[in-house]
Amino acid sequence: MEKKLPASKDKVLFTPGPLTTSLSVKQAMLRDAGSWHFEFNALVLEIREKLLEIAGLTRERGYEAILMQGTGTFGVESVLGSVVPPEGKILILSNGAYGERMLQMAGHLRLNAEVLRSSEDQTPDLDSLRQVLQADSSITHVAAVHCETTTGILNPIHEIGAIVREARRIFILDAMSSFGAIPIDFERAGIHYLISSANKCLEGVPGFSFVLCLRSALLSAEGHARSLSMDLLGQLRGFEKNGQFRYTPPTHSILAFEQALKEFFQEGGVVGRGARYATNHRVLLAGMSRLGFKSYLPPSVQSYIITSFVFPADVRFEFSDFYRRLSDRGYIIYPGKISKADTFRIGSIGRVFESDMRDLTHAVGDVLQDMGITLASGQNPASGAVSGSQPLLQATAV
Amino acid sequence: MEKKLPASKDKVLFTPGPLTTSLSVKQAMLRDAGSWHFEFNALVLEIREKLLEIAGLTRERGYEAILMQGTGTFGVESVLGSVVPPEGKILILSNGAYGERMLQMAGHLRLNAEVLRSSEDQTPDLDSLRQVLQADSSITHVAAVHCETTTGILNPIHEIGAIVREARRIFILDAMSSFGAIPIDFERAGIHYLISSANKCLEGVPGFSFVLCLRSALLSAEGHARSLSMDLLGQLRGFEKNGQFRYTPPTHSILAFEQALKEFFQEGGVVGRGARYATNHRVLLAGMSRLGFKSYLPPSVQSYIITSFVFPADVRFEFSDFYRRLSDRGYIIYPGKISKADTFRIGSIGRVFESDMRDLTHAVGDVLQDMGITLASGQNPASGAVSGSQPLLQATAV
Repeated sequence: MEKKLPASKDKVLFTPGPLTTSLSVKQAMLRDAGSWHFEFNALVLEIREKLLEIAGLTRERGYEAILMQGTGTFGVESVLGSVVPPEGKILILSNGAYGERMLQMAGHLRLNAEVLRSSEDQTPDLDSLRQVLQADSSITHVAAVHCETTTGILNPIHEIGAIVREARRIFILDAMSSFGAIPIDFERAGIHYLISSANKCLEGVPGFSFVLCLRSALLSAEGHARSLSMDLLGQLRGFEKNGQFRYTPPTHSILAFEQALKEFFQEGGVVGRGARYATNHRVLLAGMSRLGFKSYLPPSVQSYIITSFVFPADVRFEFSDFYRRLSDRGYIIYPGKISKADTFRIGSIGRVFESDMRDLTHAVGDVLQDMGITLASGQNPASGAVSGSQPLLQATAV
Repeated sequence: MEKKLPASKDKVLFTPGPLTTSLSVKQAMLRDAGSWHFEFNALVLEIREKLLEIAGLTRERGYEAILMQGTGTFGVESVLGSVVPPEGKILILSNGAYGERMLQMAGHLRLNAEVLRSSEDQTPDLDSLRQVLQADSSITHVAAVHCETTTGILNPIHEIGAIVREARRIFILDAMSSFGAIPIDFERAGIHYLISSANKCLEGVPGFSFVLCLRSALLSAEGHARSLSMDLLGQLRGFEKNGQFRYTPPTHSILAFEQALKEFFQEGGVVGRGARYATNHRVLLAGMSRLGFKSYLPPSVQSYIITSFVFPADVRFEFSDFYRRLSDRGYIIYPGKISKADTFRIGSIGRVFESDMRDLTHAVGDVLQDMGITLASGQNPASGAVSGSQPLLQATAV
């Protein structure tokens, strides 16, 4: 690690996440807070209420926000492990690694599970979903991923949710990398449980995830938890009993999150943040396209969160070399995660702006030159594509 | 929260934990690290090796250090849920809340479990342990807590471990609040799995725990994990595959921990840190004793980690008032957790020194005066007691 660099000279992370956060968010961690202390408890309560506000929800309308230690995966598992009854069955919609991860979770948790797969470059087939739910009455829960960062595909959660609601099943949404930057209409999508993380579009530091849920749904899951640490209802009851996490929380991550939320609202909430990320994505795509890179997804399903680019068809292109050269210039990108194509990924989220995207694409150009690679430019069909197939909903910005 | 206070003016935490950390440890968090990045992976590997070094272990001798997201309780559950086979049975030694918590975990995890309870002010009865293990051959694992912070009692883990080893069972030790400040002889105690946390005697910030274990034992637990996120063997395999956490780690907590380990070794490792804490405890006990407070535990079993004090027998003493007055003066203590006695607790660990302990006891005296309470002084039988019943072993200090 380059200890001597001042904080502002950190390499820029285009990797969601962890992602780049503001210095002020990090500076909020220069404190030690007592997790039993009433001042800290008040802060936790405030954060829980702000999260509901971002989603356009209130406790009066029956919703709760529950913080859970650990990364986003822990949050997703806390839902799956806490709410599916032993005799229940979960249908998982998968078109990427995060759908597959839920299936793996179900395996470890010994849940009855079914998967409805679609290709990594396609959103789930809605007719199939309708048919599966009609054919199998033992399915009690349906889980989907909003933005699959495997590719960057944006799944049509409002349409999926409408089908799930019509079939009267419980809907679980992994909105890890979308919440806070892509509008989500909770009630239209009929969401019972939504999971996201401190360290995605809300630009906090990693350390905890959170679950927004319909209180009545969670209360009816009493006794199902397969883990003590990740018992979602137990965690809610802990907050309600004395305002505390049941077990030591990552206090510094929570102090950072308080500051991150301030900056989120200052930026204009979901609308403001989404606009910045959309611009970041547009600038990235334009720059990469000029260099001759092709994005993996068709523009109709591409989110502005993260973009997969296909490896150039040049034998001189070696990803680890490309990666290291970019890192040497101060830019950290992501490897690909797609099973059927050679890609790398670049995120547009975190404390990065269009100038960072421009700098990055310039650096990519320089690195290609250093590697002796020239691509045919201007051929990218995705060039200029900005948002996904979903209509931009009214967001709750403050 | 008092945002305007500079970091150095934070209230002092006598609450393990979270506990007070050094400013330099917190400043190490003023960075954003990519968790996929090779520089970060190298740091994680270095931390894992340093943890083994603190325990006097090496990978060559078959031991591994595995980091796990979430608080210490997540670490304990990752062991219980990953290593006890479906047909196995765990015997839990309990003389406080943390023993009881393991029992609760076993319940959620649907493990076969048995408990051997002793009174909160007494260490486990070794003869009973021997008899239970002899009588019930279905017991495969034994779990104990080293320092029960419920009271501050120090359990004789080397003696317990010897009995477990003789009976050829697997020994799991929750050394959350002792590791790094109280010597532990892994091989003499026959420990297979030890769990501790970043935010206890090693004085990092909260966010992750770690497990030190015998690799061969863990490898034989293949397929037992009841959770994906907390799959201990899966986590080890993740580190071995590509140096990474399987799921986003709390990168800032890990950067802080790197600095915390530096300061730990600078202080003289287990011996140096243990000596400071022992002094802290001695000064605390002397000061509180002078004021007329009585400690709950007999000196023979009292650790120098945390001390329970009995409420004064004065109707004017109301804990929440006492707590708040101390908080107003900048000192945060812990409420009691003992089921059968009214106590409060004061920790001696974290970045606190004997001057802090002295300041605290002076503040306690002032607060008592403000509350109009006078205690008979000099009557405390525990006065001057410093360490527990265990011999101070040779520690591995660097």
